[in-house]
Amino acid sequence: MGDRDEHGIEIEGGDGKGGNLKEPLLLQKSVSRVNTTSQLAIVGANVCPIESLDYEILENDLFKQDWRSRKKKEIYRYVVLKWTLALLIGLATGLVGFFNNLAVENIAGFKLLLTNNLMLKEKYYQAFAAYASCNVVLAVIAAALCAYIAPAAAGSGIPEVKAYLNGIDSYSILAPSTLFVKIFGSIFGVAGGFVVGKEGPMVHTGACIANLLGQGGSKKYGLTWRWLRFFKNDRDRRDLITCGAAAGVAAAFRAPVGGVLFALEEAASWWRSALLWRTFFTTAVVAVVLRSFIEFCRSGKCGLFGQGGLIMFDVNSAATTYTTPDLLAVIFLGIIGGVLGSLYNYFVDKVLRTYSIINERGPMFKVMLVIAISFLTSCCSYGLPWLMPCTPCPAHMEEECPTVGRSGNFKNFQCPPNQYNDLASLFFNTNDDAIRNLLISGVDKEFHISTLLLFFSAIYALGIITYGIAIPSGLFIPVILAGASYGRLVGTVLGPLSNLDTGLFALLGAASFLGGTMRMTVSMCVILLELTNNLLMLPLVMLELLISKTVADSFNKGVYDQIVKMKGLPYMEAHAEPYMRNLVASDVVSGPLITFSGVEKVANILNALKFTRHNGFPVIDEPPFSEAPELCGLVLRSHLLVLLKGKKFTKHRATTGSDIVRTFKAHDFAKAGLGRGLKLEDLNINDEEMEMYVDLHPITNTSPYTVVETMSLAKAAILFRELGLRHLLVVPKTPGRPPIVGILTRHDFMPEHILGLYPHFNPHK
Amino acid sequence: MGDRDEHGIEIEGGDGKGGNLKEPLLLQKSVSRVNTTSQLAIVGANVCPIESLDYEILENDLFKQDWRSRKKKEIYRYVVLKWTLALLIGLATGLVGFFNNLAVENIAGFKLLLTNNLMLKEKYYQAFAAYASCNVVLAVIAAALCAYIAPAAAGSGIPEVKAYLNGIDSYSILAPSTLFVKIFGSIFGVAGGFVVGKEGPMVHTGACIANLLGQGGSKKYGLTWRWLRFFKNDRDRRDLITCGAAAGVAAAFRAPVGGVLFALEEAASWWRSALLWRTFFTTAVVAVVLRSFIEFCRSGKCGLFGQGGLIMFDVNSAATTYTTPDLLAVIFLGIIGGVLGSLYNYFVDKVLRTYSIINERGPMFKVMLVIAISFLTSCCSYGLPWLMPCTPCPAHMEEECPTVGRSGNFKNFQCPPNQYNDLASLFFNTNDDAIRNLLISGVDKEFHISTLLLFFSAIYALGIITYGIAIPSGLFIPVILAGASYGRLVGTVLGPLSNLDTGLFALLGAASFLGGTMRMTVSMCVILLELTNNLLMLPLVMLELLISKTVADSFNKGVYDQIVKMKGLPYMEAHAEPYMRNLVASDVVSGPLITFSGVEKVANILNALKFTRHNGFPVIDEPPFSEAPELCGLVLRSHLLVLLKGKKFTKHRATTGSDIVRTFKAHDFAKAGLGRGLKLEDLNINDEEMEMYVDLHPITNTSPYTVVETMSLAKAAILFRELGLRHLLVVPKTPGRPPIVGILTRHDFMPEHILGLYPHFNPHK
Repeated sequence: MGDRDEHGIEIEGGDGKGGNLKEPLLLQKSVSRVNTTSQLAIVGANVCPIESLDYEILENDLFKQDWRSRKKKEIYRYVVLKWTLALLIGLATGLVGFFNNLAVENIAGFKLLLTNNLMLKEKYYQAFAAYASCNVVLAVIAAALCAYIAPAAAGSGIPEVKAYLNGIDSYSILAPSTLFVKIFGSIFGVAGGFVVGKEGPMVHTGACIANLLGQGGSKKYGLTWRWLRFFKNDRDRRDLITCGAAAGVAAAFRAPVGGVLFALEEAASWWRSALLWRTFFTTAVVAVVLRSFIEFCRSGKCGLFGQGGLIMFDVNSAATTYTTPDLLAVIFLGIIGGVLGSLYNYFVDKVLRTYSIINERGPMFKVMLVIAISFLTSCCSYGLPWLMPCTPCPAHMEEECPTVGRSGNFKNFQCPPNQYNDLASLFFNTNDDAIRNLLISGVDKEFHISTLLLFFSAIYALGIITYGIAIPSGLFIPVILAGASYGRLVGTVLGPLSNLDTGLFALLGAASFLGGTMRMTVSMCVILLELTNNLLMLPLVMLELLISKTVADSFNKGVYDQIVKMKGLPYMEAHAEPYMRNLVASDVVSGPLITFSGVEKVANILNALKFTRHNGFPVIDEPPFSEAPELCGLVLRSHLLVLLKGKKFTKHRATTGSDIVRTFKAHDFAKAGLGRGLKLEDLNINDEEMEMYVDLHPITNTSPYTVVETMSLAKAAILFRELGLRHLLVVPKTPGRPPIVGILTRHDFMPEHILGLYPHFNPHK
Repeated sequence: MGDRDEHGIEIEGGDGKGGNLKEPLLLQKSVSRVNTTSQLAIVGANVCPIESLDYEILENDLFKQDWRSRKKKEIYRYVVLKWTLALLIGLATGLVGFFNNLAVENIAGFKLLLTNNLMLKEKYYQAFAAYASCNVVLAVIAAALCAYIAPAAAGSGIPEVKAYLNGIDSYSILAPSTLFVKIFGSIFGVAGGFVVGKEGPMVHTGACIANLLGQGGSKKYGLTWRWLRFFKNDRDRRDLITCGAAAGVAAAFRAPVGGVLFALEEAASWWRSALLWRTFFTTAVVAVVLRSFIEFCRSGKCGLFGQGGLIMFDVNSAATTYTTPDLLAVIFLGIIGGVLGSLYNYFVDKVLRTYSIINERGPMFKVMLVIAISFLTSCCSYGLPWLMPCTPCPAHMEEECPTVGRSGNFKNFQCPPNQYNDLASLFFNTNDDAIRNLLISGVDKEFHISTLLLFFSAIYALGIITYGIAIPSGLFIPVILAGASYGRLVGTVLGPLSNLDTGLFALLGAASFLGGTMRMTVSMCVILLELTNNLLMLPLVMLELLISKTVADSFNKGVYDQIVKMKGLPYMEAHAEPYMRNLVASDVVSGPLITFSGVEKVANILNALKFTRHNGFPVIDEPPFSEAPELCGLVLRSHLLVLLKGKKFTKHRATTGSDIVRTFKAHDFAKAGLGRGLKLEDLNINDEEMEMYVDLHPITNTSPYTVVETMSLAKAAILFRELGLRHLLVVPKTPGRPPIVGILTRHDFMPEHILGLYPHFNPHK
């Protein structure tokens, strides 16, 4: 455990691994160490226990009995319910997505109109005061919600959802309080003028909604419909949360196909064909919900929710033929975009590490940091446009110039009538409108080069320093904004050399930044196509994404992977590291092991539960129940607690399996959400009972996956990852030894653990 | 083996399973049995050996030595080469796709112009003679190629590619001869007026190209660049063939994103994130190649290759708002579409079984059948339009009426000037043009209801009876044609009740048929969007696909799954059947087993190779090499052959591993394509050598995946499927027995095998 112990950070409660009885929770270490360790829980910095999820089907006697007696009708109900839940997730996510946009547009619209009116009266200082104080108030609300109610709601949420779908449940990451703060925090944060998106938070929101619906009801609120118990397991929850994540993207971008692909490419670690169909259904529902609401709003019943809101950019008029110089320009754009994208990741990483020092001092410091960034953002967006000269309105425009009202291309700002300030059109707007203005085509000369340069630099820097403060903050919009301004800048500079429209350049610039930071290809491509509604740009967008991803991959990892790693979440990669081929399974097992007999003394079980944090214990059948000691299977901590609570004990060592099977139902052992199952303290066992015996056979999973101790670690890792295991039993190769050598958990496959044990394999040394 | 033996059809050579030494190849049984068995090799009916693919990384000493000594430079070259191969696959598939369209358009165009000219001179009988004889000649060429050169090229090819990617290599399915016949057979077949598509064949073509490039060069043609040896293994070949399949769809439909999704949803059984990116790159290359050629042809340098060819339909003008009655109409369309789609599958199945009786009589019979269907098709497409009255040309049309030249909406046919025959516009055209005419929007009254009804019935029937004859024949186009005419028919009938355009109805009808037969959702949806270039129809198309798939799934399986099953390919489903939970791994193992010692007598090995068709043999270390008999690992037939060929034998039982490791290189054991590796006959071992010993340790995979004999069969099946195994070793649970109980292969997980052993689990009994 060298590396980890040195840094003092423990990932997980050990999952039944032997020996380490004093495995601590993931703890925040002292400030002085923050910069030396690579594993940190930074964003939403709280003491958060992490637990692995149980995706394996546990084939014990109870499960088999339940499954055998399951009627066709029940299976039918299960299928119908699962589709209904998918429908509900789609409806709810669509609704939240619309509500989010409606609220943001109205709040931000009110703020901008207020400021605008003061500016028209030339009360510039008052205008700034109104603008900045509106922003600060909104920021404080968002930050307070986040810091005091649900710290897990800070940040994008995509890394956590990704980790969850990989099998890591961090405490309260999908809790109802997180959902509440994520929705409202995101609204106030985005309306407060921060350079943050609502897309990442929407994905997290979708996942939270799915988790809530997949909890199997709630006893607290009396929602205990008995059919919901089917979903009280991690496998079904995983499916629903995948649907939720897809629905989130679909709602954020109005991109149903993009949502499915996002879930497939970025979010999910395991994928089945059936899941493709179910996520597709969910995103289709989202699309229909959004469409109906937008139809409803078209008649003007939604306040300031105008043409803006649900972003949908039209880049239709862009030219669709291109020549060699155009392609060269596109390649150039992609290479530089890739470099800038990977730099973005680098800076985000640095900033997150710095902020974690501030954030962990307490909620007050979090709020203060948010206020500081909010004020800085207000200064930039109100102050910088003053540096730009006024531009006369172009003649013969369809659009009004200067803009009257809230959104529009030609903000008057401080200029005299019939002139506009081009930087204000970008800065003094909601982020969505700014993107729309950047992507506009056919008006090549709307923005000065210096305007674009200034805007790009400011947004690039603001995007980096905003992510990591204690508000729900998506990364898509800052990256798209920076990328689009970069692309339009390059397009304007290269204008004389290329036939391509500057609006198209802006889109390609956004693609190159997205490829460079998030490293998604197909899903990003489809999302951009669904956003811009122009399929003819497909080859160029594809090319752009491929180039920038390739370039950026040679520097560092994608931004989400980076954050997952920084948060210390034990993410299992799909491939095995090369050095694992030099090791065998038993090399990384750390003993000694705690095992139970098939019929075990209650006191022994209680002690094991009390003094270890293991989540799985091997069960060994010993004489007289078998001829020689042999491995019976694996029993889970949560199941042991339920069994002990039932108190089906006997005075003597005897099998009472059939009795237990009759007393318990399989769903008594169904898994509750994290932190909501039985706890050791809930048991009330007296001294007499402590000396009695309990038969573990009915709850023992008799088909655990096993590997022989001489199995290559790389192949064991692939087995562990592909089957989504939590425990992998290592059995001896030679006879005459105890029937089990050890247990491998997620933890044992982490590079930090392995390279700690075998530092000479470290490729970076 | 009850069920299988009764039907007399063996799937695979046993893969190292014990006992059945006389396992035959997959043989065509006598005609009288054809209708009684469910497992038949029907389309492309030939005696075809099937072999499983080796996807597992075999970690033997040689591999480890090779891998340890591999320099960074080599890994870099490997990566660059793999991307280069992806590029080449994209280029080649794009080129073939374009060539295919060019040829079809020119040949079919010439044929139609010739007939048209004769008709203008009112020589109606001569016109029919010219038309029918053109068709028959083209059909005979296609059929002769198919029947005499490469029978494997008949049919769609998608089921075989799907099976390959699941791990089943059927003989010559991806051979160069198959590629040749697939390209030219498809051209002549489509140009010959059959109701077949070129889309399925394009997928197969793409896969063949990928396989050819992934062969690691060819000694025969002197193409033996040493770096290509990296790709001489089934894992890399699988990746390349996935790219090829995606490129095929991308080339056929000009749908790059749709191609990627098709590979993901329908073709591939295993998927990794890296693969997403690589297929995406390949399809992007295809899109660029096609685009450049189409640009080139726009100047008229491509003969009759006009606006037709690469199908790309514009349904842009269709209305994008819809009301409740519209939605009801769409739902109705989907339900009936689903029913008709599943009926289509049912009939295709029946027709295939009937044709197999004819086809297996010999190539002559195949050609005769093709001629008969060709003549029938000519009669329908020339004869049926005579039943329709002439329609006066609509006034104020942008398009010329009646059509002059080849393609166009308003075929004059037998009508007087200024009138057109609406059925001829559909029938007397290439399939692509017919689809374009059906999808046309804004001209609601172009087709009579009776025309559409007649066309729909004829195409539905022709599509069914054409699939299964000995020409390369895709299913997409017949299904889209039938679906579009069905949709337009419903749209015309419901016209007064709905605001939707009939062109949109035609598109939705096509979607409902595609959902009902092929059961793809996301990929089909994206392909349709890319074909029609209108993203605003997305929610409706999604809804349509979901409804029709749901309806059709309650009747039967998707058409490709059905064909895979009918061909007797042992396809591993992603899920375990419920009855497998009642069985354990040892229940389906059939012994006795043939094992080798760590150092084995040559004669024993030769005998085992000669008298069994097993592909894997467990290696047991026995005293004096170990204390007790223990499992060392698994050795492959192909590796044994190479080792024996090398003749590193010793007189006495001694380990000579290091000597062997020095003599051989890992790539000596690289896997050649099916039927091209070493054969037993290539060995030349004399009697003296027969009595010598050979050390098997260096080629023994010491990390085979194992399950304990009491492991639930369902969980063993999941392990086998998820990791893409070929052999799964079953080890004993109790000590004191031989270290291996048996080997599970793909074959042992087939429902036919299990239900043969345990008929009482059969859910249909």
